[in-house]
Amino acid sequence: MIELLPNHLGGQWTTGGGPGSVLRDPVLGTALVRVDASGLDLAGGFAFARHAGAGALRALTYRQRGELLAAIVKVLQAHRDAYYEIACRNSGTVRNDSAIDIDGAIYTLSTYAKLGAGLGERPLLVDGDAVRLGKDESFQAQHIQVPTRGLALFINAFNFPSWGLWEKAAPALLSGVPVVVKPATATAWLAQRMVKDVVDAGILPAGALSIVCGSAEGLLEALQPFDVVSFTGSAATAERIRAHSNVVRQSIRVNIEADSVNAALLLPGETAGDAALDLLAKEVAREMTVKSGQKCTAIRRVLVPEGLYDAAAGAIRARLAKVVVGNPRHDSVRMGSLVSETQRAAVRDGMAYLQAQAHVLHDGSRHELVDADPAVACCVGPTLFGTRDPDGADRVHDTEVFGPVATLVPYRDMAHALALARRGQGSLVASLYGSDTRALAAAAAELADSHGRVHVISPDVAASQTGHGNVMPQSLHGGPGRAGGGEELGGLRALNFYHRRAVVQAAPAILAALTPAA
Amino acid sequence: MIELLPNHLGGQWTTGGGPGSVLRDPVLGTALVRVDASGLDLAGGFAFARHAGAGALRALTYRQRGELLAAIVKVLQAHRDAYYEIACRNSGTVRNDSAIDIDGAIYTLSTYAKLGAGLGERPLLVDGDAVRLGKDESFQAQHIQVPTRGLALFINAFNFPSWGLWEKAAPALLSGVPVVVKPATATAWLAQRMVKDVVDAGILPAGALSIVCGSAEGLLEALQPFDVVSFTGSAATAERIRAHSNVVRQSIRVNIEADSVNAALLLPGETAGDAALDLLAKEVAREMTVKSGQKCTAIRRVLVPEGLYDAAAGAIRARLAKVVVGNPRHDSVRMGSLVSETQRAAVRDGMAYLQAQAHVLHDGSRHELVDADPAVACCVGPTLFGTRDPDGADRVHDTEVFGPVATLVPYRDMAHALALARRGQGSLVASLYGSDTRALAAAAAELADSHGRVHVISPDVAASQTGHGNVMPQSLHGGPGRAGGGEELGGLRALNFYHRRAVVQAAPAILAALTPAA
Repeated sequence: MIELLPNHLGGQWTTGGGPGSVLRDPVLGTALVRVDASGLDLAGGFAFARHAGAGALRALTYRQRGELLAAIVKVLQAHRDAYYEIACRNSGTVRNDSAIDIDGAIYTLSTYAKLGAGLGERPLLVDGDAVRLGKDESFQAQHIQVPTRGLALFINAFNFPSWGLWEKAAPALLSGVPVVVKPATATAWLAQRMVKDVVDAGILPAGALSIVCGSAEGLLEALQPFDVVSFTGSAATAERIRAHSNVVRQSIRVNIEADSVNAALLLPGETAGDAALDLLAKEVAREMTVKSGQKCTAIRRVLVPEGLYDAAAGAIRARLAKVVVGNPRHDSVRMGSLVSETQRAAVRDGMAYLQAQAHVLHDGSRHELVDADPAVACCVGPTLFGTRDPDGADRVHDTEVFGPVATLVPYRDMAHALALARRGQGSLVASLYGSDTRALAAAAAELADSHGRVHVISPDVAASQTGHGNVMPQSLHGGPGRAGGGEELGGLRALNFYHRRAVVQAAPAILAALTPAA
Repeated sequence: MIELLPNHLGGQWTTGGGPGSVLRDPVLGTALVRVDASGLDLAGGFAFARHAGAGALRALTYRQRGELLAAIVKVLQAHRDAYYEIACRNSGTVRNDSAIDIDGAIYTLSTYAKLGAGLGERPLLVDGDAVRLGKDESFQAQHIQVPTRGLALFINAFNFPSWGLWEKAAPALLSGVPVVVKPATATAWLAQRMVKDVVDAGILPAGALSIVCGSAEGLLEALQPFDVVSFTGSAATAERIRAHSNVVRQSIRVNIEADSVNAALLLPGETAGDAALDLLAKEVAREMTVKSGQKCTAIRRVLVPEGLYDAAAGAIRARLAKVVVGNPRHDSVRMGSLVSETQRAAVRDGMAYLQAQAHVLHDGSRHELVDADPAVACCVGPTLFGTRDPDGADRVHDTEVFGPVATLVPYRDMAHALALARRGQGSLVASLYGSDTRALAAAAAELADSHGRVHVISPDVAASQTGHGNVMPQSLHGGPGRAGGGEELGGLRALNFYHRRAVVQAAPAILAALTPAA
């Protein structure tokens, strides 16, 4: 019988009471482990997190909680090889792609550990200066932020089992808020192993970190008013969470990261021989193929001036043609597989849906798989679509195909380009390519209302730019509208979600006693 | 036929096509005006606001939009007498109570006008410093805030037709976001008249300020992804808004201000002869009677040490006994009426519900009405309940009776007092009374997670404190949990709701071009 991974809840390891779901190797098709959450005492486990876990975390200062994060970093680094092994087997990713998930998590944790050290011994966060409320200074208002007295429930996506956990857990734990993570079933193994290693190392107070693997059933019902829930995944599931009767009734704070049809935009004024076009082609090819395009931040639409449509198509095609697809264990392979048969079917369906309004510029099915059986392995070659009807092809702007797929879209002028970018109805990220500083700045300002992040690649940052799709802990991650309206990371801004802002109106001596470290 | 007030939508005045609802004088019972929103072109009107209104507002700088607010202040000041007249007739309020609504609005607008002047000519808001994203400084991240490209829909409560409009409209307009207000029907007259005066004065661009009076039907369906909606009212309606299919599907940003069972807490260590007890009694009596207790911030629970229960009851009772109730037009009257027969019935029902778990310490029905017919006027005398079973009397902690009603609750020790305050499940405000600086600061920090505002009244601020229930524009207004989880005001913090935060990652020269005023 395949190993059944235990859940960690209420400070204890507990296996589910049902047969569970089998996690598979998406390249070889073999069964790996099982997960199950049947019969868990969610109410009891959540109460333990809220009282024991949160109480112990809140008794620490920000500096001390930052030290906990630094200790987690050490544990994860010590087990790094095991995580790469699990990622390869369960996610079908090549080493470079696993690194985004694993080393990206470690880097994010390290960043928040340092931010914790910077916050020091203060018992709460001061928000701005005190302001007088009358004619003299005898009565003033001081805003503060204090940790919410609940737990943070993370319902996470399958594409980042490691980073998706730790990029949320780092600010939550630093804030003094205990974490319960429900990883996506298909790739839950890595998250479970990491939690197990951290729990076994005895770093965190009991109840500070819990994991429930398997069905999400009952999790939302177990939430209480001061809990928060952070979801990453499809817009359809996001709608169900947001409208859930318990969530709505209790005013439970919700953060959503959902679908996003991100754009890359080559500004007008560049020619086929300029560096900007080459930088665009390089970034598009990279974003299409990293993690087989299974990133919510990946480029889905490539907007170029009409006159550069063919040149852009050629440049991207040339790069895609070199991508070797197949078994991630093979040295020559640059792109592994999708995470599951379900995803492979969804990507194929999505491609057929797009193709009804587009033509194929680079056909991914022509890529021969290296060291992988096409009948078994969930590998899909990179496909570039193109359309000559940017306004009429609505599917291009509305459809996120979560795989190595993008569409080239020509535009007439800058106003048209911006309007097309906005057809995404709110996205996580747009990237801009060009060499005109003022034009790039103006375009970034124009897109800031509908994009959580605008990533500008000018020739002078070709070597130092951090990548369209890479989420840096220093920067906001999230987007309005169909991207879910959420906010994550952005340095200390991430702590806002796990704190409650309040204002204290009082005599100055009382405000001084409230914020001794300020 | 009674006058039918027109709506202002799509830059035009339009009367509804139905018979409408009649607004009444709650003291005399007479019909005043009618409102109706039947057959309005909401989609067209909203589109006009989003394009014409928002476009014109966004073309201005923050300083210029601040000047628009200053111009609105002048118009409202010029028509102040008419507003007091309408408030008296439609809300049944005495002059001091009308002032909170009318002059409170003008003060709030003035505050945001000054904040606009302080923001100056900048085209967008800079959020923090640029941070480097690599080893050198060649590629950096700068967070910014830009106005959301949608409209702000306000669905407002009956108790503050003026302040409720302008405390939201001031930060929205300053942010460059057009406003559509749907005032509560019972008291819509004052909001409609104010909007009419401002529109007639030609201050704002067409489409920047719209008003729909009557039913809210169709308003939420007409919203689009970058719109925001701000609701003040009951928790039941708040649930419907939050879970509304269009709101959920489009990730529309929602701010909710709902029920709140606010507490006043006399700290341990005071005696019957101390100033703190007298300050508590004075504040409780004032909060119970101002606007006949129809304030979401009013004191509903009065927590006192067990040993001071009788002294507190006596002190509050003595103040309530002096309150003269009746026709607000009469010079001797200090407390007018509730806004409607519906509210009178709801308050009476709520009092009966509370009384099943409490006893009467001061009986409001003993107050004889001055110059008002008890069979017609919606006047209700102030009633103080008491309970000797603070833990068992759950209705006291769960029930907001929206009238001149509060309950005295004894506690054993400070931990018990804090636990009882939290039984409100998240409130807008708690006030603390005492003379020990450190104890007051500690209690404020303890309550900050479950209260949007903690108002501390020590003897030294007896003259300068701004009042438990008064919402100052400098201070956050909102509370977690059952209070709705919203945030309003708090100075510039109010602009966050009407902006989208984004990060621009680029070369320093591009970031410099993005934020020339920074």
